[in-house]
This record gives sequence, C-alpha cells and structure tokens, in this order.
Amino acid sequence: MIIVMKPNSTAAEIGAVIASVQKMGASPHPIYGEERTVVAVVGETRRISPQAFMKMPGVERLTTISAPFKLASRESHPDDTVFQVGGYRIGGPEIIIMAGPCSVESRSQLLETAHAVKEAGAHILRGGAFKPRSSPYSFQGLGLKGLEILAEARETYNMPIITEVMTPDAVAMIAEYADILQIGARNMQNFGLLHAVGRIQRPVLLKRGMMNSMEELLMSAEYILSGGNYQVMLCERGIRTFEKYTRNTFDLNAVPILKQLSHLPVIADPSHATGRWDAVTPMARAAIAAGADGVIVEVHPRPEEALSDGPQSLKPERFAELVRQVKRIAQAMDRTVPEPIE
Amino acid sequence: MIIVMKPNSTAAEIGAVIASVQKMGASPHPIYGEERTVVAVVGETRRISPQAFMKMPGVERLTTISAPFKLASRESHPDDTVFQVGGYRIGGPEIIIMAGPCSVESRSQLLETAHAVKEAGAHILRGGAFKPRSSPYSFQGLGLKGLEILAEARETYNMPIITEVMTPDAVAMIAEYADILQIGARNMQNFGLLHAVGRIQRPVLLKRGMMNSMEELLMSAEYILSGGNYQVMLCERGIRTFEKYTRNTFDLNAVPILKQLSHLPVIADPSHATGRWDAVTPMARAAIAAGADGVIVEVHPRPEEALSDGPQSLKPERFAELVRQVKRIAQAMDRTVPEPIE
Amino acid sequence: MIIVMKPNSTAAEIGAVIASVQKMGASPHPIYGEERTVVAVVGETRRISPQAFMKMPGVERLTTISAPFKLASRESHPDDTVFQVGGYRIGGPEIIIMAGPCSVESRSQLLETAHAVKEAGAHILRGGAFKPRSSPYSFQGLGLKGLEILAEARETYNMPIITEVMTPDAVAMIAEYADILQIGARNMQNFGLLHAVGRIQRPVLLKRGMMNSMEELLMSAEYILSGGNYQVMLCERGIRTFEKYTRNTFDLNAVPILKQLSHLPVIADPSHATGRWDAVTPMARAAIAAGADGVIVEVHPRPEEALSDGPQSLKPERFAELVRQVKRIAQAMDRTVPEPIE
Amino acid sequence: MIIVMKPNSTAAEIGAVIASVQKMGASPHPIYGEERTVVAVVGETRRISPQAFMKMPGVERLTTISAPFKLASRESHPDDTVFQVGGYRIGGPEIIIMAGPCSVESRSQLLETAHAVKEAGAHILRGGAFKPRSSPYSFQGLGLKGLEILAEARETYNMPIITEVMTPDAVAMIAEYADILQIGARNMQNFGLLHAVGRIQRPVLLKRGMMNSMEELLMSAEYILSGGNYQVMLCERGIRTFEKYTRNTFDLNAVPILKQLSHLPVIADPSHATGRWDAVTPMARAAIAAGADGVIVEVHPRPEEALSDGPQSLKPERFAELVRQVKRIAQAMDRTVPEPIE
Repeated sequence: MIIVMKPNSTAAEIGAVIASVQKMGASPHPIYGEERTVVAVVGETRRISPQAFMKMPGVERLTTISAPFKLASRESHPDDTVFQVGGYRIGGPEIIIMAGPCSVESRSQLLETAHAVKEAGAHILRGGAFKPRSSPYSFQGLGLKGLEILAEARETYNMPIITEVMTPDAVAMIAEYADILQIGARNMQNFGLLHAVGRIQRPVLLKRGMMNSMEELLMSAEYILSGGNYQVMLCERGIRTFEKYTRNTFDLNAVPILKQLSHLPVIADPSHATGRWDAVTPMARAAIAAGADGVIVEVHPRPEEALSDGPQSLKPERFAELVRQVKRIAQAMDRTVPEPIE
Repeated sequence: MIIVMKPNSTAAEIGAVIASVQKMGASPHPIYGEERTVVAVVGETRRISPQAFMKMPGVERLTTISAPFKLASRESHPDDTVFQVGGYRIGGPEIIIMAGPCSVESRSQLLETAHAVKEAGAHILRGGAFKPRSSPYSFQGLGLKGLEILAEARETYNMPIITEVMTPDAVAMIAEYADILQIGARNMQNFGLLHAVGRIQRPVLLKRGMMNSMEELLMSAEYILSGGNYQVMLCERGIRTFEKYTRNTFDLNAVPILKQLSHLPVIADPSHATGRWDAVTPMARAAIAAGADGVIVEVHPRPEEALSDGPQSLKPERFAELVRQVKRIAQAMDRTVPEPIE
Repeated sequence: MIIVMKPNSTAAEIGAVIASVQKMGASPHPIYGEERTVVAVVGETRRISPQAFMKMPGVERLTTISAPFKLASRESHPDDTVFQVGGYRIGGPEIIIMAGPCSVESRSQLLETAHAVKEAGAHILRGGAFKPRSSPYSFQGLGLKGLEILAEARETYNMPIITEVMTPDAVAMIAEYADILQIGARNMQNFGLLHAVGRIQRPVLLKRGMMNSMEELLMSAEYILSGGNYQVMLCERGIRTFEKYTRNTFDLNAVPILKQLSHLPVIADPSHATGRWDAVTPMARAAIAAGADGVIVEVHPRPEEALSDGPQSLKPERFAELVRQVKRIAQAMDRTVPEPIE
Repeated sequence: MIIVMKPNSTAAEIGAVIASVQKMGASPHPIYGEERTVVAVVGETRRISPQAFMKMPGVERLTTISAPFKLASRESHPDDTVFQVGGYRIGGPEIIIMAGPCSVESRSQLLETAHAVKEAGAHILRGGAFKPRSSPYSFQGLGLKGLEILAEARETYNMPIITEVMTPDAVAMIAEYADILQIGARNMQNFGLLHAVGRIQRPVLLKRGMMNSMEELLMSAEYILSGGNYQVMLCERGIRTFEKYTRNTFDLNAVPILKQLSHLPVIADPSHATGRWDAVTPMARAAIAAGADGVIVEVHPRPEEALSDGPQSLKPERFAELVRQVKRIAQAMDRTVPEPIE
C-alpha cells in the first residue's frame, strides 16, 4: 500500500503518518520525490485501516501496489533512483563503467590493472577478494589481503571499489573496504545475506542468479530495500541455457523490462554473460543501447595467466576500445560517459 | 576442404579444378572473392586427393575447414556475403528494416500497414499468408489470397516482400510472389524444406529455432548453401527459457558470434524475441548495437484486433519512432539506414 | 464441444447428429465408448446451435472441452485409447517394447539386430531409413533400400515395423512399408507433415520436440486426430536443458501428466532421453513405473561401429537384461509384457 | 590422488601415511573399506611426492582421481556409503521414506501429520522451521518455536527429524534439534553454509539447485566431505525449464548417473519436482525404479489450508497409498521398505 501525501504536506504531517503506520504494526518507508512524498507501507499490513489515514492531515489518497515487489516497484517510486558513489551519479543520465580483474591475484596485478582501466576511462574498480568457486580446491581469493590491496588501489587511483560479499558475518568487514558490495549470482536468494546488506547503508550491486526470473530478482532487491537500504543496483549477467558457444545467455530483454517495472539502476555484465572476450565489446554496446545505466567488465593485463575467468577478460587496450565504442552508443542515447575524476 | 586459387588464376584454371572435384565425386562450390577465388569442396570428400590438386595450374594451396559447417563458415569465405533485394543491399554497411503485420488479415489491413511502414522508413514488407499455428483450430492464414494481397502491396508501394514457406511443395508457388522466403523457427530443422529452398535462387531468411543452438542454425544454413542457394540470412528471434515476463529470451550474443563464425547477414527479430511491444524498440536498438545487419518488426494498425501476435505488434507511430532511434544507433556504428526507394 | 448421446441411442440417431454438425459447417468426430457414444465437434463451431441438438432424439447433453486440445483430451474420451499393431494391443494393460538400431545400415546389421531383439522379447522393430541429421554431410539413411530391408525383417521375424517419415510427400510410400509411422522430435511442429499423416489410417508415434511443452505435444496430436487418424501414440524422448552429463533431460513428469490429460498411449524413449547406454535400463524401468504404456529402445550389435547414436545403443545381451527388468516393474504395476508372437 | 593401502596394512602404517600427507601440506581423508583402506589426498597437493609414499610400508599403489570431485567420487570409494539415522540405514538395500509438511505451522498440525505419516509407514519426519521464501513478506516459518515442535514430535512418535538450515550461524542451533540438516536448492552453492555443515558430524541432505548441473551438485557435496563430514545425501528435486504444466522438471536421469559417479545415497523429492499432488505418487514410483535410495514427500492434513506448497502436498490417505505402491516397486528392485520402528 502507498499513502500519497499532498504536494504541500508538512514534515510534521508526514511524521504523523509514519508513526501511525508503525503503531498499526507495519513498516513505513517514506519516499521523498521531487514533487511530493509518498509513504510505502509493507510487512504486516492486515491491521492497517485505510479510512484512518484518509482522515489525517496532508494525506491525499491511498493506492495499492499490484506487483509482488513493493518498494522496488515503479508504482511506489515513479522517479528513477539515483545515488552517488565517490563523485559519480548512478541511475541518472550518466553511464557508469566498472572494470577490473575477476580476482585480486597480487598487488602488482591489481595496481597495474587499476592504472590501465582508469586511463581508459573506467570509473569504478572491481576485483574479487573472496571468490565463490564451484570446487573447494579452486583458488578462493586472497581474502583480507585482497581487500587491503583494493584499498591501496582506491587511494592511489581515486577509484571507488566494488567487491563481493559471500556471508552475512562478513558484511561489516567488507563494508569497511568497499564502496559497493556485490551479491553474486549464486547468492541472489541467500536470504540471510540479503537481510544483512539490507541493514547497512552502503550501495549494493545485486546480480541476477543464472536460474532466476526477473521477478525473483526484484523480490530479492525487495529484501534489501525493506531492510532500509535503498541503494540497490540490479545486474543482468546471463542465464543458463542449452547454448554451448557462450558461457551464459545474456538476457538483455531484462534491461528494458526491469527499467519499466522498477526505479532501480540496471547494470549489465557482458563478461559473465558471454564468457568470451571477443563478444564483450559488442554486447557492452548492446546493453547500453537497450537502456542499461552502466556496465561491469573484467579486465586483466595478461588474461592467459588469470587465476579465474581468463577467457572472458579483456586486455587493457581492448578495454580502451570498448570505452570508446560505449561512448558513441551513449551519445546516440542522449546519455554521457563522464570523464573519470582525477 | 578449400582449394585456394592464385590471385591471377584464369577462368579456365578454375574450371578445371571444378571439373576435377566433380570427377572425384564431391561437390565444388566456387566463391569469387575480391582478390581471389576459392573452391570449397563438400559432400563425399573421401576420394579427394590433395596431391592431385596441388599440381594443377592456378592452385595456390589447400586448407581444411575445422567447423562442421563449411560453406557457411568465415574460413571458407572471409568477406561478408552481400546480396541485393529490390534495390537494397543486405549484409553490407547498410541496415535493412523489414516490417509489417504478423499475418495478412485483409487487403485493407495490409495496404494500410504497408503504406505506414514505408512512410516510416521500412524497406521490406513482411506478412504471413501461410501461418504455422500450434493449434489446428487457430487462424491459419489467408493462403493464396494472402500472397495476392502481398503482391498488390509490392506494386503499390514498391516494397520487396518477405513471407513464410512451410512445406517443400509450396516453395515454387511462394517464390513466384515473394522476394525473400522465410523459414520459420519451427521449421529450422525441416530438412526437406531446407533442401527445397536450396534448389532455387531466391534469398532466404532462416530463423533460429527456439530450441536450437547457434551451431545447428549454421548447419541448417549449410543445407541451403550446399544445395546451391547462397543468399541466406540468419535470424535470431529468441529462444525458450524459464523466464515468464517475456515470450522468449532474446539471445543477442548470437549476433556477434554468428558474424564471427559466418559471412552470412544476421537479422534480428525483436518482436518474437520479446513478445511485448514495449520492449521492441529498445531491443531493436540493442540488436543494431550488437552488430546485426537489420531487423524484422511486427507492425499492425490496431494491435488489439490482430488475429495473431497482437501483444508484440507496434502501432505505426511507434514504429516510426523505432526507425528514428535505430538510425541514431546505426550512425554510432558507422552504418546507415538507407532511405526507402520511391 | 461434445454431444453426449444417451446409452441406448440408435445408429440412426447418431447419424442424424453427425449430419447436422456437418451441415452447420463444423467437423463431427464420433467416439464409440463401451457405454455410450459421444460426438466431438471441432473446427468452425461458431454456427453451432446447442439448442438445436438438445432437441434431437438420442441426445442426452452437450458439454464444452476446456483444454485447447479437444479430440486428444480425456474430457472428450474418458476411456484409454487402445489399438492393435500386428497382434499387439497398445494403450491397454500390456507393455509394448519397440527395439532396433537407430539407422538401418545394412541388411545383415538389421537382420542380426531383429533376430536378437525378438529373442530378447521385443515386439516391434524400429529402424531409420530416412534420417534427420543436423549436418547435410552426415549419413542420411539408406532411403528406399532401408525400407526394403525393414520389410524383409518383418517377414522373417514376424515383427511390425516402426520407421520415421520426414516429408509430407513421403507419407504414402513409408506407409506401404511401415506398421507405425514415426514423427521425429524436430518435426513435431511440421504442420504439413502432421496434416499428411492425419489423412491416412496408420498408427503414428509422435515424438515430443526437445523444447516443446506438453501442451504443444497434445496440440500437434490434435492436428493428426482432427484429420481423422485416431491411432496416435505420444512419445517422451527428453528435452533440452543446460545439463551436460546427459544428451537430453528425460521429462518423465510428462508420463503421468499426459496420461491424465489425454486418452492416447504414452511411449518413452530412454535412449534419446539419456544419450548414454548405461542409463537406458534404469530409465526404462522408471518410465514403466511412472505409467508409460511402452518403451522404444536403440539396440545395435556393435555400438562402437554404429553410423549414428552408438553411445546410447544397447548391445543385445544388455537389452535382454532390460526386458527382464522391465517385466518385473510391469508386474509391480499390475501390467504384463506379452510374449512375442512367433 | 588416492593412496591405496595393502589389504593387510596395519593401523600404524595407515597412521604414518596420514601424518606424511599432513606434513606435505595436503588433507588426508582415510576411507575404511571392507577389504582395504585407502587414503584420499585433497587440497594443496602440489608438494606431494608420489615416490615418497610408494616406499612407505603398507602402501600398495597410488592412483589419480579424474573427476573434479574427489571424495565424492566412486573412484575414491567404490562401495556405497551407508549411514544410520535413528535406527534406519540410508544408502543400503533399504528404501527410506521421509514425509511431513512443507512448513511447521502449528503444534497440532505437525503432531497430526507426524502421527499420520508414521502410521502410513514413513521413517523420518520432515518439516521446515526456517523457510526460504522469494518474498520478504511471505510466511518465513515459526523459527525456534518450530524446532521445539519438531523435537516434541520426535519424542512422541520416535521419528528422526529433517529440517532446513539457511545460514552458517544457525548450523549449531539446528543441529541440536535435527537428525538431518537439509540444504535447500537455493543454497546449493552457498559456500559459507557448505563449509559450516562440513565442520559438524550430522547427516546432511543436499538438494540440487534448480539450475545446477549434476557436476556442480557433486562439487558442493565435495565442500562438505572435504570439511570432514562424510554423511551426505544427494537430493534431486527438479530443475527449471520452460515447461508450464509442472512446477519443475524432475531430472530422474540424475539418479542412475549420480549413483554411478558417486558412492553417496541419492534421495528423490517428487513433491517439489512436480509441484502437483496428482503426479507425486507415480513419480515416487519412478524414482525408486530409477534406483533412488529413498524419497522425501510433502504431506499435509488439509493441503488447501497450507501456508506453503499446498498444491503439491498429499493428504495422509493418499500418502499411505504412495507407501503401498513404493513397496511394490522396491520389491521388484530386490529392495525393501523397512517397517517403522515403534
């Protein structure tokens, strides 16, 4: 349910509505729009009395949200959600490019890559310190040491950091180092983890599971939003099908559909979605043309030596070409790729 | 196997090679490139003696094609295949737009749509006269009457026609009316039909089956090429997955991969691949950004009255907007959308 | 729509109803049950007047069929469909076993296999003469020569023959040689072919496409039934998924669901559904336990030399073990595997 | 790598081998077979010197495990793994039946169901206290209160309990109440959770993810085994496909393939794999015929009132019929369904 306040409603009136919702046992989520404020009501709504609210000062009307996801829906929040990460605005007219290696493998590898992707025009540095691996015997990431290397790269190159968090009890630690927490595809329905990142105030990039529908992705975002963390990006990274020429099938249909159903920014990951470096640049272009708000791309100085995901990693010079091409598509979409902040 | 002729080889030398291949029981397919001619050898190749060819005048070298598809592979034909339909060149730098209703429903419906899509910038008119329908009780198309209406629209609006052929024995008749024969997704592995269209000289648009891999699509193209018809377009129209918000999952990865593996033009069908009119325009943009050579789009003057595929049909004014947006993306790709020929 | 006749209605009364349906422009399909006759009405039903029929002598009531498939539905035909092939009854309490090689490769190979499978307890001999192959360069079957070999085996071993038909114009010829016509998975929605086999009176085994839904399978059966051929078996042979350890995923859920929705016999093909000989016997057992009316199994005397499907072919002695195990499961289901007719 | 000890090797010799493996930095996992002991060596194996072991007393030979999963593979452990849960042997010739409601909803609902399923012949009681739900607003289970109700049912009816664990930090608490810990499909690659259950000594039922391959299932089992917990059951519960008549597609091929590749018991879940109560009994029969070691089935006294999974829950009397039918199939497989222990 959504309580729509009048355009000129006062802070006190809004506060009174919020207090009433709480008293009735439900959770109020005020959304402050440009023109007016609405209060989304979720959770235990059975004891909510619409009549009671209609009589309160400042309330214009009440409406129901038909989608199973509430706070994530455009119905509750018609404007695009835009938030800042280190000087960059995500979800607005600007296209954001995140790049870096799959895994942090060593200090020199990460710093070399960071330098190269920043030069090429990337805004945010990606790198995995804790890696989800199918096999217990595969390289599991450098762990805390990897986080420290990422922190050094952030200082050296003035780039915000995105890295993956895998367990609820690691959220606090990762949040000390990372500007954006990534929830990986295999954890999209790890509800304990979703709860944990919902309780902090740090942007989250939520990857769609390789087996999950768009609706389930939005429901998982809802777990985070309903916990009180509204800075969520949705990420399409490919789903699993019978096709063997590519690692996954890039479901770019998800870009316009998610943008239509939700106000949250949508990021595309052409590296995992193709699994082949030679398809990454065309599919990054396609993602932007479909309406994505940014891309996240794997770059490695020597892909053939990468400890993970080598076949889908771009060399720095190819990544620079990707940035040039993405800029042209962005322009054709009346959007811009901002210059990296020095 | 490919027999690569020297750049200055003569027609007589090429002819001798072709004759020798035939004498050994295999099928020669000469491919006349800008710089040189190669002769692809397919079929029964066990009795082919490489040594014999190396001694023939004009022969430079012999190589093997590693892909299971031979004539369709870039290895056999490094240049893009380009051919003319009406006055339009398909497979070259120009982006071709095909549009029209799913089914020809009546003379007035088709003429009205043809007029509108031509005005909006479409080059080729689509419309089904024989419709493959899951149910024997659904509208099966107007048949011959539909072909006649298409022929009238071609004359009136000077637009080449594309329409579907469903059975081998209908190929000759359809070819009398249509400029391009469409093989639908359900018939991608109807080998009798592939054989039949391989024996005529008329461009074919071959749609990927909703259950078929890219490799199988190329193998089906190979059936047509090996029959002697080299004018084949590959069409990605979505595959079947678990996702329920869209009718199919648009596998745009296929665009760069097919362009890399094959020299044949690649067309994208965002109408079937999404099943929702509100996703057609963004996905048409994405297809062009991924590198497609054209799009095929369903347009209906009154989608709510359509006898088939209404939910995925664009109204004419929305189609005009699609053309405008596709033009901008084409420009960002250093390609052009030609003006329709009067 | 179904017109239910009274238990004691006369042939003349039934004939009058049939004539009326035809006069109104629709197609009547009388179904003669043990207790009473019903007349299913399909096709152009808009001009049918229920009131008119209610007044006719012998008519008890009219009901609507809710499923999109009509003649194939249990609603229209509550009893199981049972029909005879050779001296075997398919669709009744007996479990039928069809076995033989993927392709007829030579006279000696087929006769050797036929002898072995008959000895082991198989009832019907399978063997492909015309083979659908992804590649135009793969072995396409022996064609007419293969049919002649099959005919010889039928005479020699007194086994009915099942073989595949791929094009509408081959139906008549195949029907001269075969006791059962098989429609392969790739042709499940080859509507021209469905029409063609619907016009003859010869049992058809219709294989589910590898990415077709159960509903679409029943709709394709409806094409055949509505043409007037009521002897249709549905065959589950595996669908395409992401799983790589098996060639296909055997959707045995289809067995109880199809039996519930339809009166047609259901046959399972564990050879294609697994693609591995070492899984064929367990999955044949599972199919019978799920309620299938029979199995179709690939057997080859020397699988390592097979021209197609070697990895999924059983050697004769392993097939004999399959028959023994299937018999035990059949018994636990209160069904029997009949002794082959000498 | 596997170090195969001689049949008459002594405990001291085995101990020396284990100590050497540890000294070289790898993890030794001794497997005590009926005839001889082998020591599987996993983890950091680069510093392992095969020559050194060949010289040690009691060592017969060293072999390599080709599968990516090591401890889970039949190569490392040719005998079936059999373990006891409350008097029942799982993985041996006996078929084990687990049954109960999806969620514990109330004390009376659980006790009523427990009584009914025990009467009908079930061995182990299932019931969810912590429920993974796509929506944050759906019923999330009774939590600790649910565990206490399960504990009461165990005492009252002498039935071991299986219940789901969702987060690493809940493992210890759940293990206090449950005889078997269930890892749900959505958590199959929740590696933190796999690590946590690998560190305790309590049987685990590991469900295959709805879009995970058999290989990935075995790799996830390997996480648990390599942690030191060898009591793992693999559970096939259906994968996600395009089919709409069923909730999931039951991949019963997995039963014979997993039994062949691994020594671990395989349990089938026909309730989730079909999503329809009317298909549960036939598919339970099919699972046993395919070779499964047991089934887990949802039963609810009043499915229409269930807070979750009502459509796939059997009523108690239908469950009793399932047990009768499973017993007949088990007998045809030369296996038995033991009588429940009073």
